[in-house]
Amino acid sequence: MQLPAMGLVIYTFGNVSMADRNHGIFAIKPSGVPYSDMKPSDMVIVDFEGKTVEGKMNPSSDTQTHAFLFRSWPALAGISHTHSTYAVAWAQAEKDIPILGTTHADHLASDIPCCPPLNDEMIKGNYELETGKLIVNTFREKKLSPEDIEMVLVANHGPFTWGPTAEKAVYNSAILENLAKIALLTLQVNPSVPRLKESLIHKHYRRKHGDDAYYGQK
Amino acid sequence: MQLPAMGLVIYTFGNVSMADRNHGIFAIKPSGVPYSDMKPSDMVIVDFEGKTVEGKMNPSSDTQTHAFLFRSWPALAGISHTHSTYAVAWAQAEKDIPILGTTHADHLASDIPCCPPLNDEMIKGNYELETGKLIVNTFREKKLSPEDIEMVLVANHGPFTWGPTAEKAVYNSAILENLAKIALLTLQVNPSVPRLKESLIHKHYRRKHGDDAYYGQK
Amino acid sequence: MQLPAMGLVIYTFGNVSMADRNHGIFAIKPSGVPYSDMKPSDMVIVDFEGKTVEGKMNPSSDTQTHAFLFRSWPALAGISHTHSTYAVAWAQAEKDIPILGTTHADHLASDIPCCPPLNDEMIKGNYELETGKLIVNTFREKKLSPEDIEMVLVANHGPFTWGPTAEKAVYNSAILENLAKIALLTLQVNPSVPRLKESLIHKHYRRKHGDDAYYGQK
Amino acid sequence: MQLPAMGLVIYTFGNVSMADRNHGIFAIKPSGVPYSDMKPSDMVIVDFEGKTVEGKMNPSSDTQTHAFLFRSWPALAGISHTHSTYAVAWAQAEKDIPILGTTHADHLASDIPCCPPLNDEMIKGNYELETGKLIVNTFREKKLSPEDIEMVLVANHGPFTWGPTAEKAVYNSAILENLAKIALLTLQVNPSVPRLKESLIHKHYRRKHGDDAYYGQK
Repeated sequence: MQLPAMGLVIYTFGNVSMADRNHGIFAIKPSGVPYSDMKPSDMVIVDFEGKTVEGKMNPSSDTQTHAFLFRSWPALAGISHTHSTYAVAWAQAEKDIPILGTTHADHLASDIPCCPPLNDEMIKGNYELETGKLIVNTFREKKLSPEDIEMVLVANHGPFTWGPTAEKAVYNSAILENLAKIALLTLQVNPSVPRLKESLIHKHYRRKHGDDAYYGQK
Repeated sequence: MQLPAMGLVIYTFGNVSMADRNHGIFAIKPSGVPYSDMKPSDMVIVDFEGKTVEGKMNPSSDTQTHAFLFRSWPALAGISHTHSTYAVAWAQAEKDIPILGTTHADHLASDIPCCPPLNDEMIKGNYELETGKLIVNTFREKKLSPEDIEMVLVANHGPFTWGPTAEKAVYNSAILENLAKIALLTLQVNPSVPRLKESLIHKHYRRKHGDDAYYGQK
Repeated sequence: MQLPAMGLVIYTFGNVSMADRNHGIFAIKPSGVPYSDMKPSDMVIVDFEGKTVEGKMNPSSDTQTHAFLFRSWPALAGISHTHSTYAVAWAQAEKDIPILGTTHADHLASDIPCCPPLNDEMIKGNYELETGKLIVNTFREKKLSPEDIEMVLVANHGPFTWGPTAEKAVYNSAILENLAKIALLTLQVNPSVPRLKESLIHKHYRRKHGDDAYYGQK
Repeated sequence: MQLPAMGLVIYTFGNVSMADRNHGIFAIKPSGVPYSDMKPSDMVIVDFEGKTVEGKMNPSSDTQTHAFLFRSWPALAGISHTHSTYAVAWAQAEKDIPILGTTHADHLASDIPCCPPLNDEMIKGNYELETGKLIVNTFREKKLSPEDIEMVLVANHGPFTWGPTAEKAVYNSAILENLAKIALLTLQVNPSVPRLKESLIHKHYRRKHGDDAYYGQK
């Protein structure tokens, strides 16, 4: 319910899932139900192969994408997918969001990757499963870790974000939208601004992440 | 009342109508009345020729446009007209909104058409009737179906949306505004991004529409 | 109080006045008082020469501008001045807002004029009085009527709007901000879009204004 | 709490401090605590060397920046740091915000300065202290007074604002965001608009500041 409250989705757009890794299942939003009508009992329980194990409603049409990410990446227990305005604009533009400042580096130490478009075979096959595979392959090829970079853009489509909990996944959806908006405005002020330099990326990311982090409470 | 709540209109802007096809009539917003003052009893009942059959107030000045669309397109039972910011910007720019991503393809499988400007004769004649004719002619010439594409821009003016109910027509007003904003931002990120490819348009549209749709609940 | 509610001002920005023409006086916002703290008894009563006749507080620093407009233009009984974002952007850009669509023509049948910058002599003299004179001179030179065009941009500064009541003046502030935003977005979609043609300007303006108007209720 | 209410921060972003100059200490937001969870007793009391003197939580990670500003500039008793969208965009773009209108001149009589990027040595050293030094050095080199100009952009990072109270510091954060947005839009309307001329800068700034000010109440 935080997605519409934060202005990240309208009507039935988007979906969130939360996994129980001990039982190899996850709960996901039912397909096409407006947030304003949704009840906790409407959530559908699905296994990591994407098969419904409990619930009367159809799960989100993006369920196979969630399932593939859960079974590929053991650290994940929450996934969020929105059509938030600025993140979708970058995805439709088929562009990585460049790291241009410390607000970005506070959250991840690289550009936000944009997967290449799916080819016709992927689209005509099991589309949602292929979307999941494309995300995992993009991370593998670019040598990115889904524990360090908890967000991705799927070209022509929009953002997926994740984390160790559903709350963190939704938080990352809001952060991504914020970073997407600031990056666009930055380039409007100065189209030739360079990428943030490595020393500052490392400094800000390390303030919040890793053994020598000193941001936050113990 | 959803139009001002969704931020799609201010003050007296815009109008919505809902038809009763069995009786060949429709209810429409009274002209120039602010949403904040409007009562259900203010709605005006009009026949498909645009003549008032019940109600003490003047109907919307755009009544002839609504009437012509209802009598030309039997599947319609609701029409919504707003001056929402981004949709009006595209209409004033006299441009179709290109289909650039799956958020768009979830709702329609083509660009959002922009009718050409009315000529002087149309403007000086029965202007609102001519606006209706222009919309219907544009769809006929471009071989578009009003059941598949429930929205249009009238050049220099703004958007009209419709559907099988008034609720769906208003929903389409909100979707159109969202698509108009994302399309403008996408082109700001990457002015040379190509139109979405046909296989992906078809895939996303078919997820939600037609016999093999698998989005939503039965 | 509608100015902050409509998002047109923050903190102490802007001011509104309302004249009683029978007594040759007007009430105006006190200077530098936040809207959130303001009480009706804080309003200052001023004559058309700008001298305080009742009230313990200093009137708005723009009082001489209001006074000059009231004594130059007999039809006015309300004036509103904001620093609303998009209208100020056009004023700072020293550009008339071109008439690009019917939303604009519904309210006025011309571009929204931007006065030229004040020269150094005007600025160092009675600045606020000179601002009023500049507005009136601009309308005289461009042969514009303040009854037809109830809004102006002062270059480098921002918008003033007016009308036969304070409510109408504030309404015009909101309309101007809306037109300023849509015009900027229109030019971002299509930088070479032409000005709206005269027949359509005339048609839309006349739907709402003059003897043959048919918009609204009798 | 005004920072999230004004839309200037989300989640845990940003921080505010308020100094007691008689005792040489200041209260500052605890590090990484969401505004929605924060209690008055969570605030941390720190001396002007940045050492915690009271409180169980870790102070903001930016504490050394605040401490250095307090000990360098005696007139300050409040500092606010946000990641507000438009101010961050200008900071990431490494650009001063040019003074383009009277809304800006009402608050300060110069461009809003953007400090140059920190060099690698500064970043790898005591980063937050170096940020404070960079701000103070930038003001010294440009011969700017922190009593006249209560705001700065740190390149690649974002805005810091201050004042004689914490309330004024937060007010300045909101004003800066407003000026940053209007300046960007102004340049989108007219990329070649010149800087505001000195006579008008002086006039508007002097209406509100100094012995001959006539804005506000006595």
